[in-house]
Amino acid sequence: MATPAETAAMRHAIALAARALGATSPNPVVGCVLLDARGEVVGEGHHQRAGGPHAEIHALRAAGERARGATAVVTLEPCDHTGRTGPCSQALVAAGVTRVVYAVGDPDPAATGGGATLRAAGVDVEAGVLAAEAAAGNAAWLTSVRRGRPHVTWKYAATLDGRTAAADGTSRWISSAESRADVHRLRAESDAVVVGSGTARADDPHLAVRGVEGAVQPLRVVVDTSATAVRPGARVLDDAAPTLVAIAEDAPAPAYPHRPADPGARPGTVRLPRAPGGGLAVPALLAELHVRGVRSVLLEGGATLAGAFVAAGAVDRVIGYLAPVLLGAGPAALDGAGITTLPEALRLDMTEAVRIGADLRITAVPRSGSGTGTAGRPTSTKEI
Amino acid sequence: MATPAETAAMRHAIALAARALGATSPNPVVGCVLLDARGEVVGEGHHQRAGGPHAEIHALRAAGERARGATAVVTLEPCDHTGRTGPCSQALVAAGVTRVVYAVGDPDPAATGGGATLRAAGVDVEAGVLAAEAAAGNAAWLTSVRRGRPHVTWKYAATLDGRTAAADGTSRWISSAESRADVHRLRAESDAVVVGSGTARADDPHLAVRGVEGAVQPLRVVVDTSATAVRPGARVLDDAAPTLVAIAEDAPAPAYPHRPADPGARPGTVRLPRAPGGGLAVPALLAELHVRGVRSVLLEGGATLAGAFVAAGAVDRVIGYLAPVLLGAGPAALDGAGITTLPEALRLDMTEAVRIGADLRITAVPRSGSGTGTAGRPTSTKEI
Repeated sequence: MATPAETAAMRHAIALAARALGATSPNPVVGCVLLDARGEVVGEGHHQRAGGPHAEIHALRAAGERARGATAVVTLEPCDHTGRTGPCSQALVAAGVTRVVYAVGDPDPAATGGGATLRAAGVDVEAGVLAAEAAAGNAAWLTSVRRGRPHVTWKYAATLDGRTAAADGTSRWISSAESRADVHRLRAESDAVVVGSGTARADDPHLAVRGVEGAVQPLRVVVDTSATAVRPGARVLDDAAPTLVAIAEDAPAPAYPHRPADPGARPGTVRLPRAPGGGLAVPALLAELHVRGVRSVLLEGGATLAGAFVAAGAVDRVIGYLAPVLLGAGPAALDGAGITTLPEALRLDMTEAVRIGADLRITAVPRSGSGTGTAGRPTSTKEI
Repeated sequence: MATPAETAAMRHAIALAARALGATSPNPVVGCVLLDARGEVVGEGHHQRAGGPHAEIHALRAAGERARGATAVVTLEPCDHTGRTGPCSQALVAAGVTRVVYAVGDPDPAATGGGATLRAAGVDVEAGVLAAEAAAGNAAWLTSVRRGRPHVTWKYAATLDGRTAAADGTSRWISSAESRADVHRLRAESDAVVVGSGTARADDPHLAVRGVEGAVQPLRVVVDTSATAVRPGARVLDDAAPTLVAIAEDAPAPAYPHRPADPGARPGTVRLPRAPGGGLAVPALLAELHVRGVRSVLLEGGATLAGAFVAAGAVDRVIGYLAPVLLGAGPAALDGAGITTLPEALRLDMTEAVRIGADLRITAVPRSGSGTGTAGRPTSTKEI
């Protein structure tokens, strides 16, 4: 059993980890707190960026000699492999840590085994402390490991009657300034921000993060299947953040100067296969982003693109900003998801609903057993 | 200044009043608590139905002789006129009440003046205690007095992406059982429930209240402009509640046996003028309902009918049941409101957002300066 001091330390470690959301991919966010025998904090740290020291190493450095005999409280099972840094399991043993409490086991086959290594070295190991909270904080990374593709959040802003613009296309501003600022926080926590060609053409969006201190800019991704939406001078082509334009294999050469798309280099244009319907294949896009180290995607724009993601079963979280506005006409937030009858609907669980300025922000995740390709629910029995 | 005991009594009186929501029209809901000199409750009551005793009379009867020297705490200014019952102002004086505390002044020209009569009789009168809370509890009636037409609540149920049905028309069930039960509570609190011909045709709705103990059934109203939607055997024609079918002056005779429409008789069919657009004129419909004593309307069905009400500036409250479901296709909740560009949008203030089962119930009212009867908003007379 974890002591109250250890549980409190875990809660703090989860908060430490969250500070680096959007900055550590392809690695998870991790926080670590070291406690001495009396339960006093002697060191703490969090993983700040891929290639940099892991959370445990930051905490060990902070603790120095006081790590000897200490308990390490870590949000994720300490790694057991040598990547750009050495295995944390060995570092903890070498520092004289005698007990390790962690929340979530490492699902990455390349990194797991740290718990066993520690036990073999005589360290007292306890797993599963505040596991649900820690897993929620690492939802994107854990999803990406489990599914082999980035975690996808679909974000939209709409009126109470589900419109994202008026009949004449005007949409500035349906949602409140507070909601728009909140979207920048979402972008900052994401590795990539994705829009479709319709949004690129209509809004010429910039897609970079503004107003979030210390934010790592996400990769800006425009799905421009026929290579016609992103024009020379598009705002997304500036230097504020990296940009990737995804076009079809058979599309003409794009009209703007572009850079090679090999992973590792600054991205430019990538050619991907089309899906049977004619748009870019969502799985191919996600695979391409995964290869580039993207673990979390914020899908921002375009009812059609969002529909393609829903149809592909590739939406892991929905965040809707609902503005207290009625229009009675204008485009809907989601289109062409391939759902024709209610039993096929994508059913979600609402996990949060909070006021953001004048708006309401609703967060929901697909219900287990629902969606895209699951058996339906009973209809009928009239009762209005 | 009201004493703490008087303020507490007012809060209780507001709760008493609320018990009769939906049962007192064309009268308001009113609660009354009588306190003796020590602040003890010696009698209480609420107005239960039109034609029955007012709240003050119930409370005076309960108090008997202990009303002498008591303070009457009332949610609405005591009436000063003789209707089906005598003026409450005189009854209070006759019973020996020496102080009256009320929340909201009576805006009805026929009934106001009770406060002045009481003062003239030497009674200590204080107005405005918990006035906002009391006014909220009487919002429908106060609106009907101010506007000379019933208060209108538009209720809808939709998916997160704003659909009320799937592409093939299936809509059972988008919202949860808890939300559907909540709608029966809304119906019970309303004097009339209104749907359009599209809903009548597609759903054959029953529209009566089920599962609410002691509920007074609302008047069921079908706006069936061309007299083709309500067919013989329609569920709305049963005896569970009164029904009014509104048809155009030039419509053919309806296909079902109907009863005369004179006020006071059990309603049947009423012929109303068409608006320029061809549908029934919303103001004429509301005027007809007002004449029949309807003070609160629950607008339940049909995106087109709701659009006509919004266009007519005749929506005073919006209650949306949002289900955590995505469809990506299917009809929207609101259509044809005459709004073509964002600056014309009907802007609301969200007053409440609560979980109802798996759904979220959002309540909103037109923002001052937007919508309903205020300057600035063009009142295009788009009709049903």
